[in-house]
Amino acid sequence: MSESSATLVGPVEVVGTGLIGTSIALACRRAGLDVLLTDSAPDHVRTASGLGAGRPREPHDVPQLVVVAVPPDALGAAIRAALDSAGPDTVVTDVGSVKELPLAAVHDHPAAARYVGSHPMAGTQHSGPLSASDSLFDGRPWAITPGPAASTGSTRVVEALVRLCGAVPVLLSPGEHDRAVARTSHVPHLMAALVAGTLAAAPPEHLALSGTGVRDVTRVAGGDPRLYSQIIGGNATAVADLLTEVRARLDLVLEAVADGDRAGLESLLGYGQAGTRAIPGKHGVAPQPMEAVRVAVPDTPGGLARLFADAGASGVNIEDVRIDHDPGRPVGQVELDVVASRAEELRGALESKGWTTHR
Amino acid sequence: MSESSATLVGPVEVVGTGLIGTSIALACRRAGLDVLLTDSAPDHVRTASGLGAGRPREPHDVPQLVVVAVPPDALGAAIRAALDSAGPDTVVTDVGSVKELPLAAVHDHPAAARYVGSHPMAGTQHSGPLSASDSLFDGRPWAITPGPAASTGSTRVVEALVRLCGAVPVLLSPGEHDRAVARTSHVPHLMAALVAGTLAAAPPEHLALSGTGVRDVTRVAGGDPRLYSQIIGGNATAVADLLTEVRARLDLVLEAVADGDRAGLESLLGYGQAGTRAIPGKHGVAPQPMEAVRVAVPDTPGGLARLFADAGASGVNIEDVRIDHDPGRPVGQVELDVVASRAEELRGALESKGWTTHR
Repeated sequence: MSESSATLVGPVEVVGTGLIGTSIALACRRAGLDVLLTDSAPDHVRTASGLGAGRPREPHDVPQLVVVAVPPDALGAAIRAALDSAGPDTVVTDVGSVKELPLAAVHDHPAAARYVGSHPMAGTQHSGPLSASDSLFDGRPWAITPGPAASTGSTRVVEALVRLCGAVPVLLSPGEHDRAVARTSHVPHLMAALVAGTLAAAPPEHLALSGTGVRDVTRVAGGDPRLYSQIIGGNATAVADLLTEVRARLDLVLEAVADGDRAGLESLLGYGQAGTRAIPGKHGVAPQPMEAVRVAVPDTPGGLARLFADAGASGVNIEDVRIDHDPGRPVGQVELDVVASRAEELRGALESKGWTTHR
Repeated sequence: MSESSATLVGPVEVVGTGLIGTSIALACRRAGLDVLLTDSAPDHVRTASGLGAGRPREPHDVPQLVVVAVPPDALGAAIRAALDSAGPDTVVTDVGSVKELPLAAVHDHPAAARYVGSHPMAGTQHSGPLSASDSLFDGRPWAITPGPAASTGSTRVVEALVRLCGAVPVLLSPGEHDRAVARTSHVPHLMAALVAGTLAAAPPEHLALSGTGVRDVTRVAGGDPRLYSQIIGGNATAVADLLTEVRARLDLVLEAVADGDRAGLESLLGYGQAGTRAIPGKHGVAPQPMEAVRVAVPDTPGGLARLFADAGASGVNIEDVRIDHDPGRPVGQVELDVVASRAEELRGALESKGWTTHR
């Protein structure tokens, strides 16, 4: 997409001043735009206003762009209301996690050309305006999903919002978007929840053998069941299609395990291994070979600080960090991922400062 | 289990000088024990010897303990050979990832009282003696799994090895162990591989929407398919049993999604959420409520170092760290997990040093 940040001059109205809405409002204020705030709960508008996110909308205000940031089940009605009540040139977007459903609620609206859905890939486990931040979207992908009726000018205005928030625009059709998030978010979430479910009733002495693997696999399943049932339920077709594929493959895995078919099992695991390599690396480039440098760190307030100070002084960039806390003793294993060609250099630098490292 | 480290005086023979075997040998050498090295590849013994892990076993040597650390499919024969060839009081253990299968290969041996299986929860994505470290097991759980014929004295010797390696002994029957690792390791691995498999053939523009969630869920699936097909294939009964349960629950999820049954979906997600809370926290204690402090960090060698120095100076202990790299710009989002009651204190300390934080 082309550079077009000049297109957005405001005012921007944000409908729904929760975490995402208020964060967008703060980013627009940071850029000097006039921001109008609307919420069915007047308290939330006062809170967001108090954070410097904008001012309550007055009857005579005509926004250039309305951003609808309400819960999934309320999106369709709120987008229609925005198209009805705003000015004749006002563009309307929403930031919901699924995109076919709100489009279906709007496609027969006479002003459908002025609606372009979008979806920022950002959020936290918290909600509400008090968790908001103008940097929530920094560097995150943000899908823009114009429907067939959307005008090019409307899409440009939404793209300008995405850039103003510091995010990276990704243009997709609504259907493509929904199939993409079924794959990269909704089905992984459901599978994590299934794995986590097997732990719920497990004897504690079995769980004592838990390592970093099962913690990683199940982490996202800690999210709010009510919110995720709305999100996943709103993408039922794409999720059911992909989950049906996964179930067929699970049957193959089960068959290979039960039949002692090692070659079949290895091939299914190999297919998964190939999938882990398909996820884009940072900055959108192909992943470089990485290597983990493992360091034993005392579990005290200063321990990690000293480690990172020493690692920083080595000049080797740390691409990722994992901490594996140990049951039973006050020491942690820290894994520092670095580009493989520089792992030895980092090990040497850390050992010269007295750290114990291993591969 | 009681403190009993005095029981192990050596010599200790290590059969199989790969990553795990050589790391055990190094830990025994660190404790001053005489260590004998055996491997079907004489090169590996020379390499491990050169690292200070011990000396080649001579015909007249009589080990007090033999540690069998060979690939899963070779375990049974190697354990029997150790029981046959060692002295009349020599204890034999193995460090394989499953425990019923090697026991079945040994239970009718006249010296079965001297065999006690075990399984350290440690490893890296690397293999071979060059990746070994005497601190590989520091603070990790290490299962000890005596069969019905095992003598108490033999179990004590194996427990002494576990403590000498710095690990935390977890006593389980072989069957319990295998059901536990099916739950905490093998089934999570297979489910991660299934999710990763859905990414293998995905269009790149869909994968552009990948966030930290799908990366976490699929990470373990990057492991060597050949090794994991041996490990999982060696635990076929326990894995197939649990996977059959998971499949039944997947059917319920699929049904709830396809039927638009939000309450059913929410209840299944809630069961998963409860499971994430069942995993023991660090030091084996019940998990405390945690909160993530999110910080934007420049992606340069010194960025993380400065952050951790400032976080360390705050006096608030960092329990976990995640880095979310952003496609498209040189900045990372770092999440620092701290005890919830001290999150505000850390945010304040970091903001006073010029960091941008949010919840």
